[in-house]
Amino acid sequence: MKAEILSVGTELLLGDTVNTNSAYLGRELAALGINCYYQTVVGDNPQRLKDMLELALSRSDIVITTGGLGPTYDDLTKETVAEYFGREMVLHEQSYEMVADIFRKSGRKMTDNNRKQALMPKDAVVFNNDRGTANGLAVEGDGKTVIMLPGPPREMTAMFQNEVKPYLSKFSEKYLVSRNIHIFGIGESTIENELHDYMLSMSNPTIAPYAKEGEVVLRVTAGADSRQQAQEMLKPVVKELCERYKKNIYGIDTPTLQDALVELLVSKGKTIATAESCTGGLISKRITEVSGSSEVFGYGICSYANQAKINILGVSPETLEAHGAVSPQTAIEMARGVRKLAGADYGISTTGIAGPTGGTAEKPVGLVYVGISSDDREEAVELRLGRGYGGERELIRYLASSHAINLAIKTIRPVFECGCEKGQI
Amino acid sequence: MKAEILSVGTELLLGDTVNTNSAYLGRELAALGINCYYQTVVGDNPQRLKDMLELALSRSDIVITTGGLGPTYDDLTKETVAEYFGREMVLHEQSYEMVADIFRKSGRKMTDNNRKQALMPKDAVVFNNDRGTANGLAVEGDGKTVIMLPGPPREMTAMFQNEVKPYLSKFSEKYLVSRNIHIFGIGESTIENELHDYMLSMSNPTIAPYAKEGEVVLRVTAGADSRQQAQEMLKPVVKELCERYKKNIYGIDTPTLQDALVELLVSKGKTIATAESCTGGLISKRITEVSGSSEVFGYGICSYANQAKINILGVSPETLEAHGAVSPQTAIEMARGVRKLAGADYGISTTGIAGPTGGTAEKPVGLVYVGISSDDREEAVELRLGRGYGGERELIRYLASSHAINLAIKTIRPVFECGCEKGQI
Repeated sequence: MKAEILSVGTELLLGDTVNTNSAYLGRELAALGINCYYQTVVGDNPQRLKDMLELALSRSDIVITTGGLGPTYDDLTKETVAEYFGREMVLHEQSYEMVADIFRKSGRKMTDNNRKQALMPKDAVVFNNDRGTANGLAVEGDGKTVIMLPGPPREMTAMFQNEVKPYLSKFSEKYLVSRNIHIFGIGESTIENELHDYMLSMSNPTIAPYAKEGEVVLRVTAGADSRQQAQEMLKPVVKELCERYKKNIYGIDTPTLQDALVELLVSKGKTIATAESCTGGLISKRITEVSGSSEVFGYGICSYANQAKINILGVSPETLEAHGAVSPQTAIEMARGVRKLAGADYGISTTGIAGPTGGTAEKPVGLVYVGISSDDREEAVELRLGRGYGGERELIRYLASSHAINLAIKTIRPVFECGCEKGQI
Repeated sequence: MKAEILSVGTELLLGDTVNTNSAYLGRELAALGINCYYQTVVGDNPQRLKDMLELALSRSDIVITTGGLGPTYDDLTKETVAEYFGREMVLHEQSYEMVADIFRKSGRKMTDNNRKQALMPKDAVVFNNDRGTANGLAVEGDGKTVIMLPGPPREMTAMFQNEVKPYLSKFSEKYLVSRNIHIFGIGESTIENELHDYMLSMSNPTIAPYAKEGEVVLRVTAGADSRQQAQEMLKPVVKELCERYKKNIYGIDTPTLQDALVELLVSKGKTIATAESCTGGLISKRITEVSGSSEVFGYGICSYANQAKINILGVSPETLEAHGAVSPQTAIEMARGVRKLAGADYGISTTGIAGPTGGTAEKPVGLVYVGISSDDREEAVELRLGRGYGGERELIRYLASSHAINLAIKTIRPVFECGCEKGQI
């Protein structure tokens, strides 16, 4: 079963919108075990849309479109597909009622344009949109299927999860189950070298490494006739990888470092506070991304100025004078200061040179110290995050924030407890 | 002159990487006045890459590829293009020296794989990569051009700016100049309604509105035989739009709200401090994204816990008791507290319910107060940012941070000073 993705919208061609829909659908199709060999973007142009639809249906069984379901004259996806399959457009009562209801409730007048959104090719399967006025749909014919989804990612992703995934399951040849093992602190090439022979020796399950911003994810995937069988096949491989990388794994199926940290603190009943210089609030922003983080996090200080380090965190002027703001001593005093200020179990800190200016030969752009302080342990770690390319301020800040969060995770739990031994994975 | 973009990489099809390269190139091509009607993604598969290359060259004059220039066996873009044009692969001495030099400096051993990166189709134009080992290239033949760029965005974008843009200028039929007018606080549909007739009446210059995360950008573009002529054509249109939206414009060609704020503070010699609850450090993170922000920003407090609001910011327990943490009174006391703590000219604050939990009928998810305090003015603004969809925590936080930054801009400068009257635009 082959699928492909056809995104419709001039705003994508002009680069005013980044095409996150295709990435999302690519991930979902891979997880469903449906191959996807092409992604295409065309503008709101009927002829080119028609050409691409014909090409896509000549080489794939399923075409998923996003965009072009809106009320205006240049939204043409449904009409083009109806023409391809030789279907007339008919009013879909439920869709009409849904749109009318939205207009009634908001007190606005419904126009003919909006009525257009309720016209569907005859015999289409309609997917409900609970976040907008454009319902999605699928049209089947001659062994081919076209699935049409709205363009706004918030509408598209919800529709996909609630309505399209169940519909697509009939095209999936077997159950695929994946586990994502999240690793921090080892490079992708090191891991690829170490696992090269092991990965080559496998066909089902498979291991695929993905690297992004200092992290590596090993995705282990098994395919079988039942979900349970696939899960069983995964276990020995996950166990092997946990054993090998237990010092660097921060979570399995845990989306981010901050999720792992908050989860860990909640489970241990501990709290943390942050003192940030070069990261400027990014660590507290990341921790508070996690819903429920208020249970473990109450105080974050962005002490960008030295005076803030002294006045709020109690860093000693002598330390700043003797070692400078970017030093292990300052990092530790910042972490200690915020821990005491907040009455928290752990304090973490960053101080460094994010660039592009401010670097010297001795303290170059990318030099960062991350610090941690707890009742029984204080430590600062030196990082060299600059690659000398320029334009890397945000990357340096992001990596520094990741290292600080990871330092907290490692301090609280030096070795990852996967639960494999107990059969929990 | 028609171009199209062909991205090569299985990681794009699987959705492990979002295709930001296509969006970037789409914007750049539009700015150069080169039409782009298609974007395609194929995996690291030689046959499908060859098929797509042939299709792309049959309908476009220029094909720009990204990806597939790496050292490994599945990096095949150059080889496939060489085959299409019937060119042999030859060693490009300068590219070889560049790669060898990188290996020499890092003390690593260069392998045959890396030598592959210096092989180029005969007579290729080579683009230097100053951020990695894969040089880019262009091959011309039969009135067609294929431009091949590396996949990592950091390498690709730098190469595009430094080497490819000058190369491409020969394909551009006229000089296109754009100005981007950045607006906050009016919806896209309102602006589109207001400008509908005006926009329809124009052909050169044109106005194109783009909306993203609470902001609208009006891009005004003029095309002419010289850059200066295009600039002159823009002036009356920019002036008209400045006049109409001066209360909501935060900048012209200013990339973000935080850039506008830092620039404004620097120009006035003023400083700002932040006190954040629901945004959790996002405002200080955004302000410190701007290089040089340390001149105007020294203190940011993330007072996630009520105790932090009381202890650090001096919010009165009575205020919290009587009005709650999410109230205009608390927002103002937070802003005042951080202003005094930092000795800054302005203090800004956020307090609200980002969700998904914590909302009530009286104070629903999305209710946020942003506050400002200066010597002569204190104010809190109530925002209703929830749309009731769920999964919108990060959007609410982002919009809240934007509103807070905008409130500071509006307080310092109520009406945008475009300089149009003085001929500065």
